[in-house]
Amino acid sequence: MFEKVLANLKLTNPVVHCITNYVTVNDCANIVLAVGASPIMADDLEEVADITAISKALVINIGTLNQRTIRSMIASGKKANQIGVPVILDPVGAGASALRNEAVKSLLKEVKFSVIRGNISEIKAVALGSDTTKGVDAAVSDQLTDNNRQEVVAFAQKLSRDTGAVIVITGICDLITDGQQTYLCQNGHSMMSRITGSGCMLSCVIGAFVASGENVLTDTAAAVCAMGLCGEMAYQESVGTSTFRMNLIDQMSLLSDEHLQRGAKIELL
Amino acid sequence: MFEKVLANLKLTNPVVHCITNYVTVNDCANIVLAVGASPIMADDLEEVADITAISKALVINIGTLNQRTIRSMIASGKKANQIGVPVILDPVGAGASALRNEAVKSLLKEVKFSVIRGNISEIKAVALGSDTTKGVDAAVSDQLTDNNRQEVVAFAQKLSRDTGAVIVITGICDLITDGQQTYLCQNGHSMMSRITGSGCMLSCVIGAFVASGENVLTDTAAAVCAMGLCGEMAYQESVGTSTFRMNLIDQMSLLSDEHLQRGAKIELL
Amino acid sequence: MFEKVLANLKLTNPVVHCITNYVTVNDCANIVLAVGASPIMADDLEEVADITAISKALVINIGTLNQRTIRSMIASGKKANQIGVPVILDPVGAGASALRNEAVKSLLKEVKFSVIRGNISEIKAVALGSDTTKGVDAAVSDQLTDNNRQEVVAFAQKLSRDTGAVIVITGICDLITDGQQTYLCQNGHSMMSRITGSGCMLSCVIGAFVASGENVLTDTAAAVCAMGLCGEMAYQESVGTSTFRMNLIDQMSLLSDEHLQRGAKIELL
Repeated sequence: MFEKVLANLKLTNPVVHCITNYVTVNDCANIVLAVGASPIMADDLEEVADITAISKALVINIGTLNQRTIRSMIASGKKANQIGVPVILDPVGAGASALRNEAVKSLLKEVKFSVIRGNISEIKAVALGSDTTKGVDAAVSDQLTDNNRQEVVAFAQKLSRDTGAVIVITGICDLITDGQQTYLCQNGHSMMSRITGSGCMLSCVIGAFVASGENVLTDTAAAVCAMGLCGEMAYQESVGTSTFRMNLIDQMSLLSDEHLQRGAKIELL
Repeated sequence: MFEKVLANLKLTNPVVHCITNYVTVNDCANIVLAVGASPIMADDLEEVADITAISKALVINIGTLNQRTIRSMIASGKKANQIGVPVILDPVGAGASALRNEAVKSLLKEVKFSVIRGNISEIKAVALGSDTTKGVDAAVSDQLTDNNRQEVVAFAQKLSRDTGAVIVITGICDLITDGQQTYLCQNGHSMMSRITGSGCMLSCVIGAFVASGENVLTDTAAAVCAMGLCGEMAYQESVGTSTFRMNLIDQMSLLSDEHLQRGAKIELL
Repeated sequence: MFEKVLANLKLTNPVVHCITNYVTVNDCANIVLAVGASPIMADDLEEVADITAISKALVINIGTLNQRTIRSMIASGKKANQIGVPVILDPVGAGASALRNEAVKSLLKEVKFSVIRGNISEIKAVALGSDTTKGVDAAVSDQLTDNNRQEVVAFAQKLSRDTGAVIVITGICDLITDGQQTYLCQNGHSMMSRITGSGCMLSCVIGAFVASGENVLTDTAAAVCAMGLCGEMAYQESVGTSTFRMNLIDQMSLLSDEHLQRGAKIELL
């Protein structure tokens, strides 16, 4: 699997519209460029539909949402749905505030998502109206482990069927499901949780892969493996967390399909 | 002093709520993660109180303030005061515009701060309504020198007693006072003034240290020494200003209590 | 030419007011510091005139414009015109949305610009109301080539005469014209288009150079050559796109006038 994913991406060079937080937006733009796509960040209500209309994917990240940008997210999501542009949701910090919970509810009601990606706390908050999210990091008790794997898989599959979106739960082990087929990805490195933006960047990379691909489930799985694999390689040459972050984007810019296929640690459940 | 400051921080992994500018926010998030805390950036009036409520410290930085975020800063500061969460103020560019001066006045009136950190121009603007700030950089004539040390110390001590906050004046030599005890820290490197965000990052690191510590004065002094010490080490391997910035965050992610205690150049006046 | 450009900049250390997008703002601030100027980012309508008043140049970048900041851009631009502060326009993504086109029209009507810099699609959108911009990247068919050079030069010269601004079109070959004299710069590296912010950073560097210089045309040309030359050097030590970006800012912080004069590949048409 994952044949020519990156080659196709570089060939088609799709525009990816990102409405995202101001914390990690630079890394998001750079990693979208690194994999061969063209990012455009635009969040004003007066222009988001225009920007979505020239894009091949839309990524909505609620990391630093506000009342102005929530309206823009919904408007761009609706436009994307109208014209068949896939939409990715990154519900950063869902569960941490009433505003985030309400925004996620509105987004799910108004917009059909192709992919929803978060850590397990965020995805649980999306699904359950849970308020257990610890800031934007996954609470330890919410980790996907061998003990609760069956339960988490069933939960994700149900959410996928309920929303119609591919669900991605990232953590030590990553899960990707379309409600029928479920992949587990073992790529990645613990350093990825010591920088900001690993999740945000992945959501944008998913956007880029889906924009140029033909199968949302496998394109998303490819993006998850690619990110994790680059995290592993980035660690090799890192001094601390900041060199790690730089190396992560470097590795994404260097990754080939051959390398991705060889390095992906993915299994179909 | 500074025994187990970093060990405690990594053990407790406190959430630090930052309402900060969009220029250096990524570096701020990354350095908070580097020292072992968990940053969350949120600035909408509808959610800041919720976010502050799950945090162990609140950092308010006015670098790119606007009328919307000023209201959020005040609301989150009030919430923090109600529930006993320490609040750190970074009055970036105070003195440079009427809006900044008014915002600082409102913040000081409405919120009780645990720590206020700025360069000497900014701290003077906070105290005196001075309009001598040269952009966001300290005017040279305002440097703390051997000649004016007594005057600057007395000024900072008075401001500390007036506000009830630990006052930190950063520059070639850093001053930390709670109005009674005053520390001088000689760590640091001139390259820190050639990147953006050295001050913003320090204010967030102070937030992280205070969040997990028990003594605001010494926790703040530890953060100041840690940042300066990492600046010294970062310079060793730097090519230019951008590698310096990366190394600075790297070094913060590697710093141990032993190293901090050995490297701190601090004296009690 | 370009004698003592950088030495003068470091000597005068001008404040450069940037109203810019939140994607590349950190890189913009860091590169302004790298060349020896002092950046200040401020975008609230209540303070932009105050900030412009203490600055030596104003850079307006519409990358993530919104209705609030468009008003601030116009207000600061008018203030700059009143007090003789040069204004640089970076029309990021012009042509990609009606909002951007309208904003550019309003800015050109209300503000007199000293320099307008963009890729050829953006500059065409500025001039022609074209809507052919592909995201924020230049459409390939719009590249300046040997075949269409005469046409593009005539177009840029006319736009310069119409607006009174020095026009900069960046691409594989960069063009700088004041309507009379036209320079072509061959410095640069293709990696500059694989990171976000090369253009935004250049616009800010132009602001810094013009702030401390005496001739807008040659100061702008110097900035264009400096950026391209540093791009060439940055590539030498790069692993991937992220090390390239770091090296680019590093090289700007190390560049001397001697090196710039020796490395500039510039010709007067």
